[in-house]
Parts: sequence; structure tokens; C-alpha cells
Amino acid sequence: MSLEILLLNGPNLNLLGTREPEVYGADTLDDIVSELTSLAADRGRTLRHVQSNVEGELVSALHEARTVAAGVVFNPGAYTHTSIALRDAISAIELPVVETHLSNVHAREEFRHTSMLSAVCLGVIGGFGRDSYRLALDALITHLDA
Amino acid sequence: MSLEILLLNGPNLNLLGTREPEVYGADTLDDIVSELTSLAADRGRTLRHVQSNVEGELVSALHEARTVAAGVVFNPGAYTHTSIALRDAISAIELPVVETHLSNVHAREEFRHTSMLSAVCLGVIGGFGRDSYRLALDALITHLDA
Amino acid sequence: MSLEILLLNGPNLNLLGTREPEVYGADTLDDIVSELTSLAADRGRTLRHVQSNVEGELVSALHEARTVAAGVVFNPGAYTHTSIALRDAISAIELPVVETHLSNVHAREEFRHTSMLSAVCLGVIGGFGRDSYRLALDALITHLDA
Amino acid sequence: MSLEILLLNGPNLNLLGTREPEVYGADTLDDIVSELTSLAADRGRTLRHVQSNVEGELVSALHEARTVAAGVVFNPGAYTHTSIALRDAISAIELPVVETHLSNVHAREEFRHTSMLSAVCLGVIGGFGRDSYRLALDALITHLDA
Amino acid sequence: MSLEILLLNGPNLNLLGTREPEVYGADTLDDIVSELTSLAADRGRTLRHVQSNVEGELVSALHEARTVAAGVVFNPGAYTHTSIALRDAISAIELPVVETHLSNVHAREEFRHTSMLSAVCLGVIGGFGRDSYRLALDALITHLDA
Amino acid sequence: MSLEILLLNGPNLNLLGTREPEVYGADTLDDIVSELTSLAADRGRTLRHVQSNVEGELVSALHEARTVAAGVVFNPGAYTHTSIALRDAISAIELPVVETHLSNVHAREEFRHTSMLSAVCLGVIGGFGRDSYRLALDALITHLDA
Amino acid sequence: MSLEILLLNGPNLNLLGTREPEVYGADTLDDIVSELTSLAADRGRTLRHVQSNVEGELVSALHEARTVAAGVVFNPGAYTHTSIALRDAISAIELPVVETHLSNVHAREEFRHTSMLSAVCLGVIGGFGRDSYRLALDALITHLDA
Amino acid sequence: MSLEILLLNGPNLNLLGTREPEVYGADTLDDIVSELTSLAADRGRTLRHVQSNVEGELVSALHEARTVAAGVVFNPGAYTHTSIALRDAISAIELPVVETHLSNVHAREEFRHTSMLSAVCLGVIGGFGRDSYRLALDALITHLDA
Amino acid sequence: MSLEILLLNGPNLNLLGTREPEVYGADTLDDIVSELTSLAADRGRTLRHVQSNVEGELVSALHEARTVAAGVVFNPGAYTHTSIALRDAISAIELPVVETHLSNVHAREEFRHTSMLSAVCLGVIGGFGRDSYRLALDALITHLDA
Amino acid sequence: MSLEILLLNGPNLNLLGTREPEVYGADTLDDIVSELTSLAADRGRTLRHVQSNVEGELVSALHEARTVAAGVVFNPGAYTHTSIALRDAISAIELPVVETHLSNVHAREEFRHTSMLSAVCLGVIGGFGRDSYRLALDALITHLDA
Amino acid sequence: MSLEILLLNGPNLNLLGTREPEVYGADTLDDIVSELTSLAADRGRTLRHVQSNVEGELVSALHEARTVAAGVVFNPGAYTHTSIALRDAISAIELPVVETHLSNVHAREEFRHTSMLSAVCLGVIGGFGRDSYRLALDALITHLDA
Amino acid sequence: MSLEILLLNGPNLNLLGTREPEVYGADTLDDIVSELTSLAADRGRTLRHVQSNVEGELVSALHEARTVAAGVVFNPGAYTHTSIALRDAISAIELPVVETHLSNVHAREEFRHTSMLSAVCLGVIGGFGRDSYRLALDALITHLDA
Repeated sequence: MSLEILLLNGPNLNLLGTREPEVYGADTLDDIVSELTSLAADRGRTLRHVQSNVEGELVSALHEARTVAAGVVFNPGAYTHTSIALRDAISAIELPVVETHLSNVHAREEFRHTSMLSAVCLGVIGGFGRDSYRLALDALITHLDA
Repeated sequence: MSLEILLLNGPNLNLLGTREPEVYGADTLDDIVSELTSLAADRGRTLRHVQSNVEGELVSALHEARTVAAGVVFNPGAYTHTSIALRDAISAIELPVVETHLSNVHAREEFRHTSMLSAVCLGVIGGFGRDSYRLALDALITHLDA
Repeated sequence: MSLEILLLNGPNLNLLGTREPEVYGADTLDDIVSELTSLAADRGRTLRHVQSNVEGELVSALHEARTVAAGVVFNPGAYTHTSIALRDAISAIELPVVETHLSNVHAREEFRHTSMLSAVCLGVIGGFGRDSYRLALDALITHLDA
Repeated sequence: MSLEILLLNGPNLNLLGTREPEVYGADTLDDIVSELTSLAADRGRTLRHVQSNVEGELVSALHEARTVAAGVVFNPGAYTHTSIALRDAISAIELPVVETHLSNVHAREEFRHTSMLSAVCLGVIGGFGRDSYRLALDALITHLDA
Repeated sequence: MSLEILLLNGPNLNLLGTREPEVYGADTLDDIVSELTSLAADRGRTLRHVQSNVEGELVSALHEARTVAAGVVFNPGAYTHTSIALRDAISAIELPVVETHLSNVHAREEFRHTSMLSAVCLGVIGGFGRDSYRLALDALITHLDA
Repeated sequence: MSLEILLLNGPNLNLLGTREPEVYGADTLDDIVSELTSLAADRGRTLRHVQSNVEGELVSALHEARTVAAGVVFNPGAYTHTSIALRDAISAIELPVVETHLSNVHAREEFRHTSMLSAVCLGVIGGFGRDSYRLALDALITHLDA
Repeated sequence: MSLEILLLNGPNLNLLGTREPEVYGADTLDDIVSELTSLAADRGRTLRHVQSNVEGELVSALHEARTVAAGVVFNPGAYTHTSIALRDAISAIELPVVETHLSNVHAREEFRHTSMLSAVCLGVIGGFGRDSYRLALDALITHLDA
Repeated sequence: MSLEILLLNGPNLNLLGTREPEVYGADTLDDIVSELTSLAADRGRTLRHVQSNVEGELVSALHEARTVAAGVVFNPGAYTHTSIALRDAISAIELPVVETHLSNVHAREEFRHTSMLSAVCLGVIGGFGRDSYRLALDALITHLDA
Repeated sequence: MSLEILLLNGPNLNLLGTREPEVYGADTLDDIVSELTSLAADRGRTLRHVQSNVEGELVSALHEARTVAAGVVFNPGAYTHTSIALRDAISAIELPVVETHLSNVHAREEFRHTSMLSAVCLGVIGGFGRDSYRLALDALITHLDA
Repeated sequence: MSLEILLLNGPNLNLLGTREPEVYGADTLDDIVSELTSLAADRGRTLRHVQSNVEGELVSALHEARTVAAGVVFNPGAYTHTSIALRDAISAIELPVVETHLSNVHAREEFRHTSMLSAVCLGVIGGFGRDSYRLALDALITHLDA
Repeated sequence: MSLEILLLNGPNLNLLGTREPEVYGADTLDDIVSELTSLAADRGRTLRHVQSNVEGELVSALHEARTVAAGVVFNPGAYTHTSIALRDAISAIELPVVETHLSNVHAREEFRHTSMLSAVCLGVIGGFGRDSYRLALDALITHLDA
Repeated sequence: MSLEILLLNGPNLNLLGTREPEVYGADTLDDIVSELTSLAADRGRTLRHVQSNVEGELVSALHEARTVAAGVVFNPGAYTHTSIALRDAISAIELPVVETHLSNVHAREEFRHTSMLSAVCLGVIGGFGRDSYRLALDALITHLDA
């Protein structure tokens, strides 16, 4: 089985650290990718990172993971709540995907309370800011190692 | 009038044949394109095929068809249920479009039971697996020849 | 296996050709039955036709098909959107049923956008006027011959 | 133009006079038919009466009226609230139909507050008991004579 | 018992004959009042007419009718669909009120399909243009004479 | 008071024993009628059985029971969830009616979770397969004997 | 297999016989327990009775039944309509549970028309007053003896 | 502060002038960009124009505006009604954005009556055809100059 | 054609400048009327101003405009979201009406997100505070001058 | 601070004592105003009373209270459930307002269960008949004296 | 009749004075009980106080009040919005119950805007902080003394 | 600050390991408590465990944690979806609470897709079986140590 983990980030996450820090924290996406790369290495895994604002490119990134990665840590951002295309892609690739959110989406607007993706993911972790990513990677690797 | 038919396929359909064969069948998209190209030729038509996972690229493909094609066989995949942009594109190009689905979407999750596109399409054909495409091409050409 | 196909037509379809031709076309039901009988014969099948305005008689016609027919082309008309009895009958007889509509129901009133029957049918074809029947028969026989 | 008026009564109206008199009054359907026959005659019209508990038979009665009657006074009873088949029949026959109710359906259960038929009828009269029929006949003949 | 009938007309009905004649007809409100005054006289009744665009003035007009009129023919216009104040006024005065509409409200926008008032009225008559008023007056006087 | 019990069965129940035995069991309707006839006799009652796929014929069967039967055991099948006509018929005949279901409708599709009829029946028994009928007959006769 | 039946009663049922007798009848809970104990004995079963107003204690009572009882007759009272905890408990214990109601809940307020529990119960019996319990016990023991 | 204004146009707006002129007018997007460039210059501003059919590219265009533009005139087209990603992007860039529509979206299908974006925009202007853009630019520059 | 523009203001707008300045700004209604009168004069138009808290008086003001004004700038305030009477009045007078709001109603409570009036107005402008009025007047006169 | 209390009564409350006494009690509005005037005087306050059936006049009465009264006891009657204009007026005047109802609105029709006003009032008191007013005045003065 | 009043407090009210003082005030439950005991004594009543976090224990406390108390002041806290069991208990005990809330629940989250209990209570008082209890006790004793 | 962590488990979790292992796994609650106690100790924390089937006892357990614990790992089980009382308790105690679920609730019945509690929790972790608890403890302690 592949040792690669795909870290996939959706729309607006490229602005992390500059965008509404009271909601999303002060860390940049680069900070998070560095930390996760290191954590993955500690557990014998490599991390590949893809960020896109385009729903269809996230679909394609999931397709590409299908044959080269062992699992996915995915923060789908705004597409969480509406994307059937991403749901279908997750079903199609048959890899474990951990849905991750920086903020507690349930404490925000009502349209952020539903997820089109959770039902086809392994599990969901959200609300812990940057630490959500670390926990999601831990959850995924623990699942893969089981 | 143009003799070209656009065969347009939406998100995740590039995985056909590998993705959930119990739902979508074992044929690849290439198999289907080959068959339809041949069937179109039998009736004096040429077939152009476009597949994209990106909603906006599907919009653009419809725009391009506007001046060069006579009609469209369109499997919009997951965008069927939510895309107003594709609906507007179909209205804008004023070509007959046949909405096509491999699976019987009505026998799946409730969010697959509604279509944003059917109201502006010529008609809908779904549930016959690979054969849905053949029937849709037949319906479109018969309509054009009438 | 039986070589008989049941062509079943629901309420108001007896008026075809006289009723709102701008919606349903100028062909009479007899015209359509003749065409389909001939097409069925071409493919080694016989066609039996039943039309009724009574929901329960359509249920009974499906029951009768159960032991003598190989499949059903069914235009349930107005009962499409509300009839659980027809849904149960289709489930009960365990024959492939192709749901067929003359008009594109999705381009009409909202109460015509849902079907109680599609989920238990093989597939759905609608919007092509009289040609919907031909395509449905083709879809059914192709399925039976597969 | 035909001088015939169809008086059409739906399910359970055959019990009139015996069924829940506090809701529907003490007059029998025969009483009402007699009165309306006489009133129609006074205005140079003949009245034909059909009552059925079967939705599809009411559809057929409307079909038959299409070529022999000038208009319809219709109390659809319980089918008022759900029957798309009757709505389609009324649209198909292109005769003026006056929807009539004995009771004030708006003062009863919520499922009696909507009508599938009103939108395709000439008008609606309800709540006046037996007198609703007289008013409906008056409205229809006045419309026909205009 | 009083011999007076209140004819009460709600918002925008003062424009009758000038406003959207394809929906409401070419007769002015004065034409209708004249006709109804004469019809009421034929049956031994006097007619008083009030029109107001102000919901609260219609409430007050109903209050005033309470001790001087025997019943009300009421076209509440746009307030039909939303006014709880008028509903309460009708309940409070304990006179028979016949709800009347020129157009068939059920064939128009969905927000015109519900009435806050019907449940507390004697009955409803609508869709017959100017003739709706005549029928409503007839229904009311027949009820009062019974 | 009459000693007759009407056992009334709705659409598709004539297929019992052949239709989806994993849902409805292997017993035929004849088996059940025989058992209930015998049980009724044991308690001094006669049983009359009517089955129809036609909603309006079930309405008529209830009407006929009105003067000759003491009560009804009624499995309305698919009409349970939508039929206002049957609800009105049950109200009209003023006999105790026990609503009965073979399967546990609440464990099936959501549209089977509501009943238009329960509110006007004496009580409801469902989920015990063939034994539901026996329990319903027992409930009815116990009620009549009280 | 155990011979014990748990009779479980939810909130407010301890007031039976004193509370709203026009809805729930004049029998006390003790009367019913006595009758059921005797009926159970006649069929070789023992009956244990638990009543609690506390949702969580009803959950615990179901847990305790898991290893000592063969099945449960359960009147969940007001918790019927909202308790996911009781639904989970019924699923967890894997015993047949018959849901029972004294009154016909469908003839009361709308919030009493849905049950969170029916889908995981063997079946439902309601509307027969005290006799509902006897029928439920009969249904359960017949099921266990089958 | 930057003097640049971003004019951003969403899906299908590239077809302007060719697509459904009765809805959208006969002017092309180039005509509008020319007019607005000139109007911006008159008020000491430069205009940059971006059009894309891809939701994610519109997100990226907003991101790019964040450090180089003073404000945005945005016609989001079909994405108006569904895009949380664009909403998040507008919130993230903390620039004033004026939402603009050619047509009066409230006079069209119901799914066009809601906007995911208005709540995070400075204001909304729609229904004035090509003039909507001029008014939006005026509103934005007046706001910036205040 | 008339040169008069009606500026119509609905409930609570008389308090402008004193009421919740953080939502509605510090300008009084007099300030705005003065500015608009002057702007109208610059473009050869006269401005008449009417403010009322009474829905029916706003209806009447629209009626009066029908024969004396060329168009209307209308801030309907709280009646925006519920008034069918104002909608009917706007339809009836067949003048162009520009719906205007000081605040961005979409950024406030959900019941302010829908408008009963927009569908029958020429267009909508909102969210720019006092400047909304200036833009609306500009839009209206530009439309009239076209 | 002003010592004046505004007692404001909405539509139909002028009929108090004559209208449906089983719902609203036998006391007239004059009786209540007398009692409250006396109670206010006992606590060093003067009471001014306004009643209107016109929503906009109630808005204006609240406006007038803004500079002359210390608080308001308000029974909005039927406007409770729909009036955004009154909600805006209460917000605008920044005085404490106590919402008061004679009847228990929650025990009546469902459309009386919601209030557009409660969210901007100090508190709500309802269900105690005439005594609701006394309690509301007590609550208001206690709040003002705190 | 008993002179005892039950003061009943639901979940989390034991934390009063420590929990979110900006919402619930700084007074402890003991402060309120002391004040109400004294006020009750002034009017010749004794007060018994029960607080519980357990829904079923509140049900039982109401049962116990049935034979020993004359009425209940009840702050049901969070159970207000969901508890059918408490509703049934209030109906069952046939004592006047005054529903009381510290905060104005209508100014908080939407799920706090509905009450399952109000319909079966004498009346409702809320929004006046600690003073709500005093007013509720006053309302109850005034009702009992009437 | 306290070093104690409260591990709180809701209804039916006492059956863990015996109940539906295909949904919840084979580990008992004791296994999980042991593992978490050890993990907490590794990070210098003590763990206290409470499990209850009673909603109100869980409320009380949260209250008790308020002064003695630093944070809570909470699996609310079935109460997740309905309990306002638990939501209020979490808000009241002002401690960080991590909501935890064994199963992926989003892949189960729809009523499990909403949480009343998430909005007031620090974050949510679910879907990883027994490992959800470990991750939640890690998230909580990392948060406390930050």
C-alpha cells in the first residue's frame, strides 16, 4: 500500500493567516503544510499538498490520489455544504478521507451546518483551528496502521 | 445546419469503468465514445467529445457548441442537481440538449431526484447504463432529422 | 421467457391527438400503438396494449403482465406523481418497466417534477413526444436481449 | 353549441342526506339533481348527471362531455385536493367547469384547503350547502350565455 | 333583522375597469355597485357600499356593519391572503360574510392560493369576473331568507 | 345489530404470497380469509371479504357495509397514505373500522409513515404479518361485544 | 429462551384511571397489570412491570430486559414522538418490542402522529384503550411462540 | 489607497448581446467594459475587467483584487444563488463589493430570488439592464470617495 | 408624458436621522428630499414626496401617481416583505417603479430577505444609505429618458 | 424622565366586551383603561390610551410616544403575528414595550403562535384576560422604577 | 381548596446567579424562592419549591402537586420547547399552571421561540428577569382568588 | 487551573461492546476509560468518568464539572440531536467541551445529522470508533495546554 497521504485544501484556504484571523487563526497554509509534513514523516508517511479554489480541480486531485495515495486529509472549505461532485469523487476513489475544518462550522451560519461529504468520509474533525489538521492526520494514519 | 453532435460528460465520468461498477457498469468512457462515434457516423453525423470535472469548463464547452454543433448529448453528472450556470448556458445556446444518466437517479439519494437542467433540455433519458447514451444520441438525431 | 411486451397507458392518454396538441402532439394513441406493434415485431416481440383512466385497473393490468409479459413500457400520465399503488404493483411483478412521458414534465408545473414510480422502474425516458415511446420500447427490448 | 350541462359528482356524494348531515345537510343527491334539472330547463338547458366514487370514471365522464356538453358543474369531493388526472381531464376537454363544494372546505382540516383543480376551472363556489349547486349552475349558464 | 347588506371592497378595487382589464374586466366599481343595488332592491334589501385601501378601515367598516347590516358581500382583494385583523373582525361581528373574488385566484401566483378569511366566512365565490358579485349577493340573500 | 364483519383489502393484496415474500410473508389472501372466517364464526360472527385495486370500489364497499355490517377490518394498502376519499367514506358510514397492515410501515420508505385514515379509524394494528389480521378481528369483535 | 415478558410504561401512565378518563379510560395501571399478568400466565409466561416518568430509566429498564426477558410490551407515552435514546435502546437489546398506545394518537394533535420508535419495533397496536395492552401481549407471545 | 476598480463578471456573461436579448439586452460585454472604463477614468479610477465561467477562478480574481484594487463591481451571474465560496472570498478580501444584475432576478424563477452574496456585499443594484453596471460603478466610487 | 417623479416613503422613514443611526444613517428625510428635488430639477424633472406609515395610504399614493407622474422611487420600508396590496397597486398603475432601500436588507434578519414587490418593479437598489435614493432617481430618469 | 405610560391597543380591541366573550371576557376596553389609569396613578404615573384598527396609526402612536412617554403597554392584537412595521417602530423609539395578550394565543390557531414583536419587546404577558393588562403595567413600572 | 402553590424550576436553573448573568441576572434561585415565599404568605398562601434537571422528575413533581396544591408557577427552562411529557402532565393534573421565563426567549435562538407547554398553561410571563416570578405568582393567586 | 478532565458518556453507551458491534465496535466502555485514563496521566491530567442514561443527570454532571474540571470529553449519544438542556448546561459551565461520536453520524439516519450541542462546544470529532475518544482527549488537552 502507498505511504503517501494527500492533504487537500479547498477554496479560500490559500488566504489562511491573512483572512479573518479571528475566525481562522493567524497561521498560514504553509505553516500547516510544514507541520503536517513533519508529523507524517515521523510516522513513516509522505505528505503531498494540493490547494485549489476550483471545485472540479479538487475532484481531479481526488482522482489522482486514487492510485498513488493511501488516504486523504481534506478541508473542503465552502464546497463542504453543496458539492455532490466531491461526494461522488470521494465515493469513487475508495480511499479513507478525513473531513477537516478549522472553525466550528456549527457555531456559524445555518447553511454551514450541513455537509454533503461527511456521509462518505471516514470521519469528521472540526473546531480546533490549526490543530484540526494535526488531529485529522493522526486519525487517518492510525486508521491506516490498524 | 451543422452535422456535429457534442457529447458532453461532467464530473467523475472520466473514472467510468473503474468507479463503483455495481452502480455505473464496467464500460469505460472510451468504450462509450467509440460506440457513439460509430453510431453518429451511421446517421451522417460527426461526434465531438468533451469531458470535464469543472462546472465552468462545461459551461464553456456548451458555449463553443453554439456555433459549431447541431445538438448536445449531455451527462452532467453531479452538477445535474445544483448547477444554475449550466442551465443558463443551455438556455443561451439555443440548441437541443438531451440530458442523460447512466444510473436511475430516482432510485438513489433524495438529493439526486431533482434536476436544475431538465426544464431547459429537450428531454431526459436515464437508468439504462451505457445504453442511455445510445438512446440519447438516437433521440437527438431523430429530433434533428424531423 | 415470454416474448410479449405490455404497452400500458394511463389517464387521459386516450384523448391523444385531440387534447392540447401544443403539449402532446398531433398523433393519436392508435398511431403510436401501430408504430410500436410493428417495431416490436421487427425485434421478435409481440405488443399488447392497455389504456385505462382508472388507477386500480392499471394496477390490475400490471398484475396480469406478471406471468405473461417480459417487460412493460408504461406512460402513467397523471398517476406518475402520486400513485403508491402503482409503485407497489411495479415492485410486486418483478418485471422491467420503462417509465415514459410524451412531454418534458420538468418544464411544466412543479407538481409534475416528482415521480413516485421512477425509483422502481428500470429507467425513464421523456420529452420526445411520440418518439419517447419508440425509444422506451428500444430500451426495454435491448435490456431484455442483453 | 350543445345545450347540455353535465352535473358531475365525485366520491361519497351518493350518500348525501345520510352522511354527516351537520356537515353536508339533509338533502339527498336526488333532491339536488331534480332542482338543477328544473333550473336548467328554465334557462333552456338540459342536465345530465353522473356520480362516481372512482377517480378514473370521473375522468372518463369529463371526456364524454367534451363533444356533447357545453359546460360542467363539478363537485369533485375528496379528489379535489389530490387529483392531477382530473386536472388534466378538465384541461383536455376545453369546456368551462365550475368547481362546487357543499361545505366550506377552508373551515375544515388543512388538507382540504388546497385544490388541484381550481386553477383550470372557470371559478369556484363553496360553502352554501345545497345552494352551492344552484349558484354554480347559474354561474355556468350565465357564462355560456354571455 | 336589518334589511341592509354591506358591500365591502378592499385595496385597488377602486381602480376597477382601468387596472389590468385582461385580469379584472372592463367594468368599473360604480357599474357593479349600481347593478348590485338594483338586485338587492328586487329582493327587498338595501345595499351600502364601502371601499378602502386601508386594512384597518375595512376592519372598522365590518365593525359598523355589526349592528346595522344583515350580512356582508366582501371582496378583500390583496388582504385576503394575509389579514388576521380582518379574520378577527369577521369572527367578531357574527354576521354572514360571503368572500368574493373577480379573478380565479387559484390560477395566479401561489401566494394568492391561500385565504386567511375563508374559514370564518359563510362561503366563497370567485373567478366569474363581475358576475361573482351578483352570485355572492344571491348566495347571501338566499341564506338570510332561509 | 348486524353480525357481519367486512374484511376489506386494498390494492396489490390479491398478490399476497407471491409478491415480495420477504416483506409480506408467504401466506396467500385465501389463507388469511379462511382463517378469519373461522375465527369470526368462533365468536358468532360472519365474515364477508372484498378485495379491490380500485380506490373508488373500496369506497363503494365501505358504503355497502354501512347498513349490513357491524364493523370493518381494513387493510387499505397503498391508499393508506393518500386517500381522502376513503377517509370520508369511513367517516360517513359511522362503523368501527380497524386499520391493519401486514408490514411495519414505519420501517419502510418515509411516504409510508403517514396515514390519511388512522384519525377516523377505531385503532391501528400493523407489523405482525398475517397475524395482524387475526389481532384486528379480535380487536374489532371485542369492541363490538363491549 | 427466557419466559419473562417486560411490560414497560412511560411518563404519566401512573396516573391512568385518574387522568382525562375521556381520553384514556377509567382503568388504573394496576388493573391492566393484573389482567396482563394473568393472561401471560395462561400462556406460560411471567410478566414483569416497570413504569417510569424518566426517559433514561426507561432506557435502563430496556437494557435490563436484554438478558432476562424474551420480549417487551411498551407504551412509551409522550416519549414515543421524540426519544432517540429509547430507539437506540430498542435496537441495542435485540428483543421483539411491541409499541402500544391506549388512545388513537392519529386522532389527536399533529405532534403525536409521528413515532421515533415504530421503525425499530416489531409492530404497533393503538387506539383500543385498555384492550390495546391485551392485544399487544397476544401479538408478542404469538410471535415468540412461532 | 489603490485607484483600481475590478469589474468582475461570472458565468455566461461572455455571451452577452447574443444570449436571450429579450432578457439581457443587445449590448455585448465589450460595449459595457468600454463604457465603464471611460466612466471610471472620468472619476480618476482605472478599471480592470475579468470574466470567467469557473466559480473558483472568480474566487481567485477576488483574491488578487485584495491587494491591488479599491473595490469591486461584481455580476456573479448564476453563482449568485448558490456560491458559498464566493461569499467567503468577498468576506476575506475586505473590499467593498457591489452586487450587480442585468435583469430583475426577482421577476424570474424562484431559485433566482435568493442571493448567497448580498449579505456580505456593500449593496445590490439590479434590473436596469446595461445601466445596472453604470449605477454600480457610480455607487462604488461614491462610497470610496466618501 | 408627465415630468413628475413621485418619491414615496413607507413606514418609520419619517424618523430617519433619529432612528438607529448605525443602521440607517444620520440624514433626515428632509435632507434627502431636498437633495433629490435638486437632482430631479437638474434633469428637467419635478419631484413630489409622500411619506406614510399606513399601507393603504401608500396604495392610494401610487394610484394618484398613475395619471400625474412618469415614474416612482419607492422605499416601501417594512411593507416590502409582506404587502400584496402594494404589489397589486404597482402592477395596476403601469408606471416604472424603482424599489429602494437604505440598508442592505440581506445582511439583516431573514424575514427581510424576501420582497413581495421586486418582481413588479423595474429594478432594485439597496445598501448605499442615503446614496441609494440618488442612484434610484438616476436609474429611473435614465430609464424614462431612454 | 417622563412619567407617562402609553397604553396602546390594536385592531378589534375596541369591540372588547361585545366580541366573543368566551375568548376575550366581558369587560369593555373602557373598564380596562379606567382600572389601569387608577393603577398608574397609584404608582405616580399617568396613562394615555390609544386604540386603532390601522397598523400605520399604531406605528405613528409609537412614534409619538418616543419623546413624551417612559414606556408602553401594547396589545397589538392581530398585528402581533405579521407586522414588521410595528417591530421597526418599537426598535426605533427605544422605549421599553410590554407585549400583552388577553387570551392564551398558544392555545388557539397555529398562526397565532408566532410573534413578530416579542423579540424587540422587554417581555410578554398573556393568557390572563383583563388581568394581563394589570400585570403588564406592573411589569413596566417596576422595570422603569428599577 | 389547598392553599399551597408549587414553584417548579427546570434544568440549569439551580445555577442561577452563577450562569451567564448577562442573560439570566445575578440573583440566585434561593433569593427568588425567599422572595416568593414571602409574597405568597402575604396573600395567605404557602409556597413549596422543587427544582430538578430531570424531565421525568418534573413530571412527577407535577403529579404530586395534583392533590396537594392549588396551582403551579413553572419555569420549565430548556424543556419548554420539546417536552410532550410535561405537557401531558400539566393536562393531567388539571391545575392552573403559569409558564414563566427569566429571559425574553423570543429574542434568542429560533428553537426557543416555540413552546410545547403554553397551550395547556393558564398563561405565559417572560422577559422580566427575576421579576417574571413575582408577576407569575401574582397572576396565579389573582386567578385562584377570582 | 484544575488538572481534571471529565469524560462524560450519554445513553446506551454503557452497552458498548455488546450493542450492535458492526456500528459501534467491540470495545467496552471500560476498555475506553482505561485507555483514556492512561493517556490523560501521560499528559499530567486525571480523568473522571460519568455515564448516565438520564438527560438530567448528564446536566448535573456538567454542573459538577464546573468547579472541579478543566474541560470535558463528551459523547452525548442520542441526546446530541435534541437536548437543549445539555446545550444550556455546556454554555453555563464555561468549560471547553469536545463533542465526540464513535460512529459517523452523518452516514446514518437523517435525524442524526443535526446536533443541538456542537454550536456551544469547542469542536467535534466523530467517525473513528474507539479512536474518536483518544483524539478528543488529545484535542482537549492540547487546547488546555495552549
